[in-house]
Order: sequence, then C-alpha cells, then structure tokens
Amino acid sequence: MSAAAVVDRLRWDAQRLAAWSDPRLSQVEAALSQWVGVDAPVLLGDAMRYAVLDGGKRLRPLLVFAASEAVGGQGAAALRAACAVELIHAYSLVHDDLPCMDNDVLRRGKPTVHVKFGEADALLAGDALQALAFELLTPDDGAIAPAVQARLCRLLARAAGSQGMAGGQAIDLASVGLALDEAQLREMHRMKTGALLQGSVEMGAACAGVVEPAALQALRDYGAAIGLAFQVVDDILDVTADSQTLGKTAGKDAASDKPTYVSLLGLDGARAEARTLLAQALAALDRSALADTGALRALAHMVVDRDR
Amino acid sequence: MSAAAVVDRLRWDAQRLAAWSDPRLSQVEAALSQWVGVDAPVLLGDAMRYAVLDGGKRLRPLLVFAASEAVGGQGAAALRAACAVELIHAYSLVHDDLPCMDNDVLRRGKPTVHVKFGEADALLAGDALQALAFELLTPDDGAIAPAVQARLCRLLARAAGSQGMAGGQAIDLASVGLALDEAQLREMHRMKTGALLQGSVEMGAACAGVVEPAALQALRDYGAAIGLAFQVVDDILDVTADSQTLGKTAGKDAASDKPTYVSLLGLDGARAEARTLLAQALAALDRSALADTGALRALAHMVVDRDR
Repeated sequence: MSAAAVVDRLRWDAQRLAAWSDPRLSQVEAALSQWVGVDAPVLLGDAMRYAVLDGGKRLRPLLVFAASEAVGGQGAAALRAACAVELIHAYSLVHDDLPCMDNDVLRRGKPTVHVKFGEADALLAGDALQALAFELLTPDDGAIAPAVQARLCRLLARAAGSQGMAGGQAIDLASVGLALDEAQLREMHRMKTGALLQGSVEMGAACAGVVEPAALQALRDYGAAIGLAFQVVDDILDVTADSQTLGKTAGKDAASDKPTYVSLLGLDGARAEARTLLAQALAALDRSALADTGALRALAHMVVDRDR
Repeated sequence: MSAAAVVDRLRWDAQRLAAWSDPRLSQVEAALSQWVGVDAPVLLGDAMRYAVLDGGKRLRPLLVFAASEAVGGQGAAALRAACAVELIHAYSLVHDDLPCMDNDVLRRGKPTVHVKFGEADALLAGDALQALAFELLTPDDGAIAPAVQARLCRLLARAAGSQGMAGGQAIDLASVGLALDEAQLREMHRMKTGALLQGSVEMGAACAGVVEPAALQALRDYGAAIGLAFQVVDDILDVTADSQTLGKTAGKDAASDKPTYVSLLGLDGARAEARTLLAQALAALDRSALADTGALRALAHMVVDRDR
C-alpha cells in the first residue's frame, strides 16, 4: 500500500469513527442520565451524577459496543455493559483523586468530586457507583439472558478488583520512588489501566451468546495491547501536554516521582512502544477472522493518536 | 403456652442455634480465608484479609444460610452468597472508619484498617472487597445456575448501593446535628443497616430456584423487621455498653450529636421498640407457612438480645 493510500485509509477511519461513535455516545449519555443517582438521597445523587455525566472520552463504552458488534452481540446488553464499565471507571477516578490518594483538584477541567461535595460524599458516591454498575448489569425485565448477565458481572468484577484495577492502583501507590523495570511497570499498568480496557472488550464479546474461542482470544489480545498502549500514551501526554488540554494536572507523574514509560524508555522510546502496541492490536484483529472490526481498528488508532 | 414453656423454648433455641451455626460459621471462615486477598498484591491482600477474617458476629452470613435452608436453597450458592454479603459489610466498615467519615481507630477490638495499613490502602481494600463480592457470586464452574447468579448480584447491588447501604450512610452524614422525626430516622436506618440485613435474607431465599410469592414476601417482612431491630439495639448498646465489650468505641453517637432511637424514644422506649420489631419478625415467619424457620427465629432473638 502506498503512503498516500495509508493516509487515505486513516482519514476514512477517522471520519467513519465519528459517524459510528456519535449515535452510540448519545445513547450512553441518555442512559447514564436516566440511570445514575436518580433515586439516590439528594447530595449523594448529585455527587454521583457530577462524577459521571458530561465528561470523559467514553473510550470504554465505545470498546464495549465495537467488540459486541464485531461478534454480533445483543444491543440491550451492550448498552448496559457500556454504562457499567464507565461507572467503574468514573468511581475509580473519584477515589483516585481523594486527598489520601493523588490529592487532585482538577479533573476533566472541573473541580474534582471531593472538592465540590466533600470527601465523605465523594467516598460514598464512588462506592455507590460501583454497586450501580452491577445493578445495571442485572435487570429483571427479561431483556438480557441470565447467563449473559452473570458473565458480564464476572468479567467486570475481575477487571475492577484486586487482580485488576484496584490491585494495580495498590502497586502504583507502593511503587512511588522505586525503580521498576519494564516488566514490573508493564504488570502494574496491565492491572491498573489495562484490565478495565481489556475487560470492556471482553464484556462486549460477552454480549453475544457464543463466540468462537480463537476469535475471543484474539479480542483479548487486542484488548491487552490497547490497554497498555493507552497507559504508554498517558505517560507521554503527562510530559508533553498542558493541563488545559488534558483537563487534568499535567506533569504530576514526574512531580510525584512515579515510574512511567517515559522515565524508563525516554520520550522517543515510549512513542515507539505505543506504535508497536498499536501494531500488535491490529494484528490480533487480523487473526480474529472477524469480518466487522472497523470500529475496533479505528478505536485502536484513536487510543494511540489522541492528544488528551 | 406457660411462661416456663416459653423460657424452655427460648433456651432450646439458644442451644440449637449454636449447634446449627457453628459448622456454618466454620465453613464461612474457611471459604473467606481461601477467597479473600490471596492473589492480590501483597499489602492490598493483607489489608483485605485483615478487614474480613477472624472478626465479627457473621450475622449476615447466618441469615443467608437460615433463609436458604427455610426454602430448600442450594448449599454452594448459599455459601458464596453468605461470603459475598459479609464482604460488602466488611468493606462498608473499612470505609466508614476512615478519617473523612467516622474517623474511628478501634473496630472489633483491633486497630482499624487505615490505622494499620494507611488510608490509601484502606480505601483500595474496601473497593476491592466490593468487587470481590460480585466475583464470588459469579463462578464459572457450573456449580450455580446463571439465573441464580444474576439474581444474587441484583439483590446485593441494590442492597449495597445508593438506595440501600451507601444511600443510608449519606443520609446519616447529612443528619448530624439535625432533629429527625421517627419516620426519617427509620428510613435512614432501613437503608443504612436494614437493606443489607434484609438483602441477606432475600439472597438466601434466592438460592432456591422458585419460592412461593407469599413466603418470599413474608421473608422480606422478616428481614425488614430484624434489620430495624438490629439498629435499635445498636443505638441502645452505644449508650449502655462499654467499648471493650462492644469491640468498638462506645458513646460515639451522642458525642457526635447523631440522632438515634435512644435520643428519640428514650432508653425504655427504644427497648420496647426492639421487642415490637422482634414480634413483627416472628409474626412474619408464622405467615410464611414455611416449615423450617427455627434458625431464622433464633437469629431474630439473637439480634435483639445481644450484648455487643
């Protein structure tokens, strides 16, 4: 393929991605607005909605939809899975911003939840968002098969728990000031960020009744690669972007002496690593033999080429 | 029935309760020890195990078993449900003890989790315990029907979330220094403490495939009554017991100017309320027409007659 053809293909992907993602994002926003914090006690409900609505790239929900559609998954299940995984992501940010963790005051360009609502309500809002994620996955209206509900809960619980996101955050905490090697850094990020991104892909796949094992494994490999790529790019942006573009405090990894891909590999090395992981993600999709992977490919490019 | 016969019956219940509960408690301890924090990063796993193992009355697990056995529920499901509900209870205590909440240093006679492991790891341990609860409910070994798994997740998520435990804690926070009337106090405690106790009973019932609707409603009524009774007795003990017996700081409700059943009804009034709720719980079991409610009856007595 000529260089021009590659550029054309990328441009097509970007345009096509917007046309594909916009209606799905609208669906997610409407569903979250309908489901989050509505019947909660007033301050708690406000804090939950503030933490979730009208913010973020919604990358995880898009991964759920893209994976679900690639395997012919069911739409009602995908919408609930998309919202559930976003709630887990949102709660993790609320707790991560608390004074006893990163003590951050700015998130998505707005005051963090504890700055606006106080620490206690921020803590409880995070707790309630995690519970709500599992409530969304288990409606009793008959719209989603119980086996799919159970599988979605299992995948989300594992991605969020001590061997996934929460475990990675604990390692992150313990690693401040330590010299991790690349294998240790990779393991930390596989858990802290990668598990929920990979979980999003697996939950999307779980919205279909049966998926061919080789295709499922390829989707897992795709998810693992973009999960790591996401963190590598995060480390790069922490150095190269400003706080206004990021919508959160830039430069805080270096300030807090945290090991990152940039501190380990240098800026160019980290950029090369991101391209390698992108290539691995796309190769996994080639292996999957699934027909409809356009959205997954475009999202992989988006993860690596984003500027915030 | 003569007064002596009533006393005999109560004495029989107390002896029988120990014979019934001891093997079930051993099962729960062994299962929790096997499942909690084992493959977690080391400090996080230690904090999770410290928060859960070798402590507490395990009232909620016993309620799960008692309700499950009353309706002929399946043992593997009951054991996992029992452990899951205890994990939610344990995580709520860890977060509740944090400085931004009750700032308590003593729990079950030991330093609280954040005193021992630091605030950040206490926060993450609580988060990971909540995720683990849902992971325990959704094993992929085929031992529990997917429909039962999904129902257990739904009940636990609702009991733990913004319309249950977390919501009640938010109301509790907001009510410090306010004069609540009895209806408001009841609603707060129905959510804060009652939802998870009632949820334990409902989860036990959900371990059976099908339960007659009238029996299910009676079990719900039983759970609601003992859920409130538990909190009334908690309020009484906060005034009448010492910290050593309680294993936690006594007198803290009055010290923090929180509305309680004792502050609202007086000590005698609160005691009378506890007896009334006990009678309601037992009457609900009579209505249930279930044959095997001995353990549920004995647990109701235990809730009201406990000294810690």
